[in-house]
Amino acid sequence: MPNRVYLDWNATTPLRPEARAAMVAAFDLVGNPSSVHAEGRESRRLVEEARATLAVAVGAQPRNVVFTSAGTEANALALSPGLRGPSGAPVERLLVSAVEHASVLAGGRFPADKIGLIQVTRSGVVDLDHLKALLKDGSPALVSIMAANNETGALQPVTEAARIVHEAVGLLHVDAIQALGKMPFDINTVGADLATFSAHKIGGPKGVGAMVMSEGIGGLEPVLRGGGQELNRRAGTENVAGIAAFGAAVKAALQALPEDVKHMASLRDRLENGLREVPGTTVFAKDVARLPNTVLFTALGLKAETAVIGFDLEGIAVSSGSACSSGKVQPSHVLAAMGYDPAVAQGAVRLSLGWSTEPADINRALEAWRKLGNTLLKG
Amino acid sequence: MPNRVYLDWNATTPLRPEARAAMVAAFDLVGNPSSVHAEGRESRRLVEEARATLAVAVGAQPRNVVFTSAGTEANALALSPGLRGPSGAPVERLLVSAVEHASVLAGGRFPADKIGLIQVTRSGVVDLDHLKALLKDGSPALVSIMAANNETGALQPVTEAARIVHEAVGLLHVDAIQALGKMPFDINTVGADLATFSAHKIGGPKGVGAMVMSEGIGGLEPVLRGGGQELNRRAGTENVAGIAAFGAAVKAALQALPEDVKHMASLRDRLENGLREVPGTTVFAKDVARLPNTVLFTALGLKAETAVIGFDLEGIAVSSGSACSSGKVQPSHVLAAMGYDPAVAQGAVRLSLGWSTEPADINRALEAWRKLGNTLLKG
Repeated sequence: MPNRVYLDWNATTPLRPEARAAMVAAFDLVGNPSSVHAEGRESRRLVEEARATLAVAVGAQPRNVVFTSAGTEANALALSPGLRGPSGAPVERLLVSAVEHASVLAGGRFPADKIGLIQVTRSGVVDLDHLKALLKDGSPALVSIMAANNETGALQPVTEAARIVHEAVGLLHVDAIQALGKMPFDINTVGADLATFSAHKIGGPKGVGAMVMSEGIGGLEPVLRGGGQELNRRAGTENVAGIAAFGAAVKAALQALPEDVKHMASLRDRLENGLREVPGTTVFAKDVARLPNTVLFTALGLKAETAVIGFDLEGIAVSSGSACSSGKVQPSHVLAAMGYDPAVAQGAVRLSLGWSTEPADINRALEAWRKLGNTLLKG
Repeated sequence: MPNRVYLDWNATTPLRPEARAAMVAAFDLVGNPSSVHAEGRESRRLVEEARATLAVAVGAQPRNVVFTSAGTEANALALSPGLRGPSGAPVERLLVSAVEHASVLAGGRFPADKIGLIQVTRSGVVDLDHLKALLKDGSPALVSIMAANNETGALQPVTEAARIVHEAVGLLHVDAIQALGKMPFDINTVGADLATFSAHKIGGPKGVGAMVMSEGIGGLEPVLRGGGQELNRRAGTENVAGIAAFGAAVKAALQALPEDVKHMASLRDRLENGLREVPGTTVFAKDVARLPNTVLFTALGLKAETAVIGFDLEGIAVSSGSACSSGKVQPSHVLAAMGYDPAVAQGAVRLSLGWSTEPADINRALEAWRKLGNTLLKG
């Protein structure tokens, strides 16, 4: 759209040229990857190339990568009762941090009475002491903590959590959907037993995700059954073009990572400094390490719903927390978990930047904010 | 691929130009359909247009169309315990025909001891007397019968089945994945309470499907949870480009339907007549109404595995039944249900035609068959 400024990259990113090209190339392949003929093998090759690319990128074996239809399905697949490590007992309960994405909070296949919530600090960081306390008594647990929060951008202590979880003979799932392409992420460095990813957060198409396991994880229960695809872990004809494009996006995103991080962080800082020129502006999770691209902020008297529409009318796409509630503007569960009053949470606006965000975009956003701040906050 | 003949259209079809164009156009839209800003609304519009197109095509209300990641997920979603009609009690068990696709045989969310199998005749048609007997005693049932079989092409008596199922206060799910685009299909004409579809069988992309309900069906349990998408019936960011392309494929496929059917049936007849010139050739389900594009056949002494490779080396893509078993050539459960010996079932080869199949393709296939027949059947 002409003359628009897009600052909602945590919801979804533009398609990278590399991903678009991979997708268009795949359009000419008719074969079903499960078919044994030449057309089938050609499609299979694309899927396996993408699998190898993602595996290398996150430190996994290709055979431990399962492609899914999105991050939500990847999370649902990862949260499987019965998972077990190479020498451990099957997990019998689930502990999730209170700031996880809705698809993790839904708990996968665990019954509601087997799901516990790990508290977070006022800065939106998982409270590891609470995690330790929860692990102390009870059966082996699967613990799910995201690498970086989608609303505040706050990085989570997943490496430390992995150590704690493994000491308690549990398994750690890391939702790395917002982290990939915005910070280095490797399942071995972290010590994650399972990790999940989404293509459309890194320049791939919407409708593709992946769940990755470390070597030796067993007991996974599929969500979709009935075909032998993905080594019997995910039935259904593969989204060949989408998977090929996911692979291309991973390659492009990781190649650009160091530069993208520098670029986004510098614009993010400029944005935050500008935002704070309107008196009474608060940036959430400001005092902890965050993704280089995410700013969640509010100001006294701000209503997020009005602000999002106000920014939109000024030509700027922003959001009020996560996009995953079908257009409904609800107070963020993330801010609630951080101990903020619903009145404050209802005023939170998220600006998220990307690789093609330009200084002029930041200027436009700040102009709009000064204008909106002057009118909206009087109300 | 140059000089290849593709006769595996029941596994997956080429992308229609209309679907490709819709997909490419959607690449330029960055918004998440759940976002409230202009970019989000633009993506939302594409999804809703596709929903309306599919709804009109199959006689449903747009609000009763749920997009999924494929036919497999659509079937998994449809097979939900607790479904109920406008005035009925929730279904408590599942009856599936023995020739259903693997994703239906998997039984969705029904426990194994609540799933019954409906027998089929020697011609691969569901035995309605057996259905009546199964419905007679026991709690309200969800019955799942496909409109047309993917291996034999045999049409199933779904309209008659709907009457029988409704008399027994049950619900009928019709897997119309192979039927769409090859015969007229309308949920009202059939009396189906739920129906499922897949984009890549009609010229749309791989990785998109849909589950459609008739008005007043309640009690559906989502497979994927955690976001409000698809009216809380399917969480996860929508595959916007894929859904838009599905809509375009539906429109193109239904417009071309009368002509495509005539075209495919005439080539199919020519193919069958040619195949039978090799002595000892049998076409399965020959004596019942079938899809206009599907030929499942064998000959005395034929091994499907060798035949598929033999055809492939001659430049012709064919299959041995369904493609959904990850390259494994297993004896078809469909032929087993029809009462054929495993030795016969292991020799079954499927040739399936499509809208762009040409007389020359049939000639090439028949030449190959005469050649293969001469060598393979001596063994």
